[in-house]
Amino acid sequence: MSEPAGLFAATVDDRAALRSRFLAVRQRTDALTALLSSEDQLLQAFADTSPAKWHRAHTSWFFENFVLASHDDDRSFLWNSYYDAVGPRHPRHQRGLLSRPANEEVTRWRGEVDRRVVSLIDSADAAAFDAVAPVVALGCQHEEQHQELILTDILAAFVLNPTGPALRAPPPTTPMTQAPRSVTEIEFPGGLIETGFQGLGFSFDNEHPRHKVFVQPFALSTRAVTVREVRAFVDAGGYATPSLWLSAGFAFVQQHRLQHPHMMKIEDGVWLGFGVSGWRLVDDDEPAAFLSFYEAEAIARFLGGRLPTEAEWEHACASSLDFDDGVFFDDVASSPLRPMPATRAGLTQMGGDVWEWTSSAYAGYPGFATASGALGEYNGKFMIGQQVLRGGSAFTPVGHARPSYRNFWPPETRFQMSGLRIARDR
Amino acid sequence: MSEPAGLFAATVDDRAALRSRFLAVRQRTDALTALLSSEDQLLQAFADTSPAKWHRAHTSWFFENFVLASHDDDRSFLWNSYYDAVGPRHPRHQRGLLSRPANEEVTRWRGEVDRRVVSLIDSADAAAFDAVAPVVALGCQHEEQHQELILTDILAAFVLNPTGPALRAPPPTTPMTQAPRSVTEIEFPGGLIETGFQGLGFSFDNEHPRHKVFVQPFALSTRAVTVREVRAFVDAGGYATPSLWLSAGFAFVQQHRLQHPHMMKIEDGVWLGFGVSGWRLVDDDEPAAFLSFYEAEAIARFLGGRLPTEAEWEHACASSLDFDDGVFFDDVASSPLRPMPATRAGLTQMGGDVWEWTSSAYAGYPGFATASGALGEYNGKFMIGQQVLRGGSAFTPVGHARPSYRNFWPPETRFQMSGLRIARDR
Amino acid sequence: MSEPAGLFAATVDDRAALRSRFLAVRQRTDALTALLSSEDQLLQAFADTSPAKWHRAHTSWFFENFVLASHDDDRSFLWNSYYDAVGPRHPRHQRGLLSRPANEEVTRWRGEVDRRVVSLIDSADAAAFDAVAPVVALGCQHEEQHQELILTDILAAFVLNPTGPALRAPPPTTPMTQAPRSVTEIEFPGGLIETGFQGLGFSFDNEHPRHKVFVQPFALSTRAVTVREVRAFVDAGGYATPSLWLSAGFAFVQQHRLQHPHMMKIEDGVWLGFGVSGWRLVDDDEPAAFLSFYEAEAIARFLGGRLPTEAEWEHACASSLDFDDGVFFDDVASSPLRPMPATRAGLTQMGGDVWEWTSSAYAGYPGFATASGALGEYNGKFMIGQQVLRGGSAFTPVGHARPSYRNFWPPETRFQMSGLRIARDR
Amino acid sequence: MSEPAGLFAATVDDRAALRSRFLAVRQRTDALTALLSSEDQLLQAFADTSPAKWHRAHTSWFFENFVLASHDDDRSFLWNSYYDAVGPRHPRHQRGLLSRPANEEVTRWRGEVDRRVVSLIDSADAAAFDAVAPVVALGCQHEEQHQELILTDILAAFVLNPTGPALRAPPPTTPMTQAPRSVTEIEFPGGLIETGFQGLGFSFDNEHPRHKVFVQPFALSTRAVTVREVRAFVDAGGYATPSLWLSAGFAFVQQHRLQHPHMMKIEDGVWLGFGVSGWRLVDDDEPAAFLSFYEAEAIARFLGGRLPTEAEWEHACASSLDFDDGVFFDDVASSPLRPMPATRAGLTQMGGDVWEWTSSAYAGYPGFATASGALGEYNGKFMIGQQVLRGGSAFTPVGHARPSYRNFWPPETRFQMSGLRIARDR
Repeated sequence: MSEPAGLFAATVDDRAALRSRFLAVRQRTDALTALLSSEDQLLQAFADTSPAKWHRAHTSWFFENFVLASHDDDRSFLWNSYYDAVGPRHPRHQRGLLSRPANEEVTRWRGEVDRRVVSLIDSADAAAFDAVAPVVALGCQHEEQHQELILTDILAAFVLNPTGPALRAPPPTTPMTQAPRSVTEIEFPGGLIETGFQGLGFSFDNEHPRHKVFVQPFALSTRAVTVREVRAFVDAGGYATPSLWLSAGFAFVQQHRLQHPHMMKIEDGVWLGFGVSGWRLVDDDEPAAFLSFYEAEAIARFLGGRLPTEAEWEHACASSLDFDDGVFFDDVASSPLRPMPATRAGLTQMGGDVWEWTSSAYAGYPGFATASGALGEYNGKFMIGQQVLRGGSAFTPVGHARPSYRNFWPPETRFQMSGLRIARDR
Repeated sequence: MSEPAGLFAATVDDRAALRSRFLAVRQRTDALTALLSSEDQLLQAFADTSPAKWHRAHTSWFFENFVLASHDDDRSFLWNSYYDAVGPRHPRHQRGLLSRPANEEVTRWRGEVDRRVVSLIDSADAAAFDAVAPVVALGCQHEEQHQELILTDILAAFVLNPTGPALRAPPPTTPMTQAPRSVTEIEFPGGLIETGFQGLGFSFDNEHPRHKVFVQPFALSTRAVTVREVRAFVDAGGYATPSLWLSAGFAFVQQHRLQHPHMMKIEDGVWLGFGVSGWRLVDDDEPAAFLSFYEAEAIARFLGGRLPTEAEWEHACASSLDFDDGVFFDDVASSPLRPMPATRAGLTQMGGDVWEWTSSAYAGYPGFATASGALGEYNGKFMIGQQVLRGGSAFTPVGHARPSYRNFWPPETRFQMSGLRIARDR
Repeated sequence: MSEPAGLFAATVDDRAALRSRFLAVRQRTDALTALLSSEDQLLQAFADTSPAKWHRAHTSWFFENFVLASHDDDRSFLWNSYYDAVGPRHPRHQRGLLSRPANEEVTRWRGEVDRRVVSLIDSADAAAFDAVAPVVALGCQHEEQHQELILTDILAAFVLNPTGPALRAPPPTTPMTQAPRSVTEIEFPGGLIETGFQGLGFSFDNEHPRHKVFVQPFALSTRAVTVREVRAFVDAGGYATPSLWLSAGFAFVQQHRLQHPHMMKIEDGVWLGFGVSGWRLVDDDEPAAFLSFYEAEAIARFLGGRLPTEAEWEHACASSLDFDDGVFFDDVASSPLRPMPATRAGLTQMGGDVWEWTSSAYAGYPGFATASGALGEYNGKFMIGQQVLRGGSAFTPVGHARPSYRNFWPPETRFQMSGLRIARDR
Repeated sequence: MSEPAGLFAATVDDRAALRSRFLAVRQRTDALTALLSSEDQLLQAFADTSPAKWHRAHTSWFFENFVLASHDDDRSFLWNSYYDAVGPRHPRHQRGLLSRPANEEVTRWRGEVDRRVVSLIDSADAAAFDAVAPVVALGCQHEEQHQELILTDILAAFVLNPTGPALRAPPPTTPMTQAPRSVTEIEFPGGLIETGFQGLGFSFDNEHPRHKVFVQPFALSTRAVTVREVRAFVDAGGYATPSLWLSAGFAFVQQHRLQHPHMMKIEDGVWLGFGVSGWRLVDDDEPAAFLSFYEAEAIARFLGGRLPTEAEWEHACASSLDFDDGVFFDDVASSPLRPMPATRAGLTQMGGDVWEWTSSAYAGYPGFATASGALGEYNGKFMIGQQVLRGGSAFTPVGHARPSYRNFWPPETRFQMSGLRIARDR
């Protein structure tokens, strides 16, 4: 078995707790895909997305390969994502062609993996448990990441279907009893601060080592940018004004003839947004989503601010009273996305709602080292050509993200639930 | 309703016969797709192929739109193939993303269309029946064409699946009691001959008008080129010898690094072919298939001959005792493809087995005119950039093709069951 | 030395005549390129065109390699066009990067080749002369073909230069004393006719063998389609009407957002055309040029006719009193293109003005065989994916073309001086 | 006139000094291009490079537009690079098609611009001089940047010419009297350091504001990585070992089938390099050049180190005794590149030789603001998708670069004189 990186460290002392955590994560995946037919689960909108069936199989393969140490060449060929050390694999852009093995076969195999992992947790001797527990914990985190992708990837496919399919019925409309939150900002004096994970619990290698960063004084908005603000950008001709854009961003906009955010259409001035319940009227006060880094960067400039660095974001987040105060998919009573009511002081929506683009390119922290073995490929080899996003989104499983969590996507990515929050120099 | 072209003429006097024909065609489609799961039916290997589910829905739409004259904007958007006169449509390369409507919904709708068409056949007054009967007949022919595509398109997808799925179990091996047929050729004196459809029964507009063509003396092989002959081509370095190829053909070969026919792999000198029962050992005496026009043209040159013109092919075919003497998919006792036994004199395998590339570019016959209305788009607008194939293949429904039938594909097409037969100047 | 094809046959008995012909052709190339700076001569607008310097060198290489039989690996690498049998070569799309050898060096080398060829013509013994004379004759024809390309290729580059460069000053405006010719057509009864080269003089292999063709009755317009007629097509929304186009043609139009012929721009309803004297006002009565096959085919349909087959065209041309009655570049008193005055009965503009697209795909005539050796690559290997054009253009050297001459280009080609003439069934 | 950015600040009090500086820069450009024919000056190897003639015209346009404030629509269309605020422009990838205006016309115009700028320097009143002097200074720096590009861009074109052209004769071979320098490294304790330009003299906006950065302890090699070390990487199969690469880097290597650095070929184990004197034997001890970021990053990993951050590099550079101790193109007695002799302690080759890739993505420093007006487009809008390089190369004009200078290119760039230096954590 590949040795898990110490940097994915998680203290999981209790077999019962680990078993329970493992089963809960696995069941949530099944609950998500229960919303989809076998046909739906085969959809791959484009090469950067994967079918839900593939996500279900790949996460099982992860446990089979790294936890059960039970390598199978054929299954690895089908379900390996990118681990070169584990061997060759099916071309990524053809994952949507894997009608076989059938979806039911994947379900059967998931059950088998579940039983074997639980059996290992229960029966391993102490040394073996100590070795395997962190990998199970990593596998759970890994599967939660794929739970988010199941939602973003199916949405990327559904929006291309002219029938506008829905994952679930729209929630009952619940009028806000509070006025939506207006923009205010909080000032931070900066200085020599620390960033990176600390404390107990799970963290990824890329959140380490915790290290010192010198930060200038800055201010950060108390909420994410809303549709109303993006609408002002659109109405002011923002998508056709080169001075608002990075050069590569404007070229991207022109190449794809962009005129508004992804997952949107504007019909006679009315903005419709595509989401988990199909097309719906957009609320001007809800957070803007499905923005590329290029759009986020330009909108920030239009609004007189800029994107925060990831160090600024993380530092500010330390002052947030409640990280997970946002809206989540699992909160069935409400539909993501939804306006933020003016009920709280301080930073809101730091977790949930939308991931927030930062101005920081994704790179290793000072002293960052990848683990040896295949799991060392988890994060490090992607540290080029991507921008960091912070926070979490409505599609992120509750409890998965944290203030030091680093998400990353190429700047042209538009199919993630990604928005922004305005920063300013002080 | 669009007025059907007189050129698709078919005498269908008898309501019972038409009803029976209609139902038989529709049921054969269902029998074919019964071999596939709902997931399988969603596969689209590349833009030139379509999912089986789409074929099932598109053929139903054809009846609904042109026979029932019951236009539905949403269904037309989803299932229209290329009829500009009928309105806009879903992008071709995204047909594989239509997980909704569900496969069961397509099945339900097919049943509804069946009932309504049968009801129209049974209850239309005489004038209405006379108007609608040729369109039903055309719709049956159209659906048979899509039956062939269901097989070629699923094969194009299955071959990309590393598990090598099969549509059906391989047939029992039945050793040939006769030696395979050796190459002989039959000479034709040529002269001012006639070509094009004549007689009763159905024909497409592109088989008309029957017209005179002056043909030089020529000879035609009594059977299709076999794997053994292609193997000689490969062994002689044919794929790397520019003098054997058209310039565009050699560029195609180099661009795609081709070294053998499609649906083949060569492992330690053993040739494996992919077919309806997955991967299997290839018999050297079976007809070569899945060849592009470029390959067929080069192989003919290598073998000291050339491709026939379509006029030569059709003229020679008139002397064939039995057009449909080939091997067909529906003949479950044997597996396409299979060697031709040396039991008969004269031309064999003219129908069945493999379509045969000709040297003729696809163009309208002298005096050819498209019909008015949407059905005029059936054949005429594709008369550029394609080469004519003649005969029929193992995937063609028995009885569908005929000596004057003109199939056509771009010269680089490799996913059809297409081979060749050698002609020579005399 | 490669053995020249008997099919390029030309009776060139007289050394003095051959020498004189050779020198005249070579000097005309130099006269053309004298209109261009060394910088101009390096331009390659896109991969299908070549720099004038390359044309000058390639034609010299042709004589050096095939006539002087003096192969030089380095020069062959640089200046070989497509003769696989002669060895590897510089990538076609990078011909515009050959600033070295310098243009002056090419000039020097051309002179050296000239001297050596003249010396060979003068001093070869009788047998050697008989062997070499047809190759010299072929080389002269070959160079004349490249003279036309020098003009089309530099125009393709100049039109992309915002300064609108001119090869030469515009001719003085000479108002027509005759009204422009109106459209009339001449009827031909058809029947079993002959087509292909016959008689003395030079011809290419692809004009052979002369052979019988059965032709239906047809009519042919007495002049080429004019700008006025294309303007009617544009004004009627022709570029946006799918029913007027072949399917591939309409896809081409949409992909490139075409709205009018190439080398044109429409400013406030005024049509400007780009030509050898830069941008100029277009005369509505001049022949339309720079049309792709797709556009020509659609315009013919719009005008209620169709393109002729090449057999029809050649058969009709036999009745033309004066093949070379068109306008030519070398006729400095007039600017191509110019309206055809109403002074003559019968077919006009068969040579000169514009090449005329036919409905015939380029293929070998019955019994066509390529020569052995490298020169066998001259025509045969391009017989796929191209449509035949007949006649000649203003850029064709006077005396180069003839009624049986077959020009060919892919259907999307828009940078050649290509137009059309309307045919109709009778 | 656009207001120049205060951030490009340069104290240029003395008219005579400015005039002299201006004329020297302009003359050096002419001296470089005097090595090239007019044909050579038109070459554009690919879209990311520009013809030398274009560089000469663009730099003149910069002075005409921003210093002389004499905007000309036609010239701006031709020679504007990317300033959206100045108006539309000729497509970048078609710069090589501008045979007109002729090279001589560009020369004439350069002279005119020179005269007008000198006249303005000499005759402007004090206020006008104060306004214009920083823009002249910026224009000189700008022209020096293009001098480097003239060399890299012509090399990128010449290497594609099979005749292997040379800009100038190779220098006489001067054997090193000292052994080449072995690898040693210098340790730095890090801490809260400052980075960014300070002092007098010219600097670009992107070197500002000077700001604090916290740096961990690190070590830096005293010289650049040599061909010998890259050779070890190649010999060890480095280009085929995914674990050495970033994921995007290995995909890049596979897509382009890279097996060694650009501008190299390996014939029978002998390494040949292409440079200003054509192909030559490579010295194992010379610095490796023409490496993409991906290659540099992988080679650093192979050698057990990593790339430095730009803050580390700049901080270390402050300890270098002599920034410009490298080899330069203008130093005609020696050929770039050349081994570094073991004559000096401490960091060598910080300027000259090769630009050194850093691990830092190009981004604005904290508090960075672009200038208003067109000159604000100079640097800021390129701050995405690029990596910072530090130092300078043999092609950088002597005196142009400095320790705080930030060069930047996309990670796949291989046609710049770019190498690396190894850093290590301490």
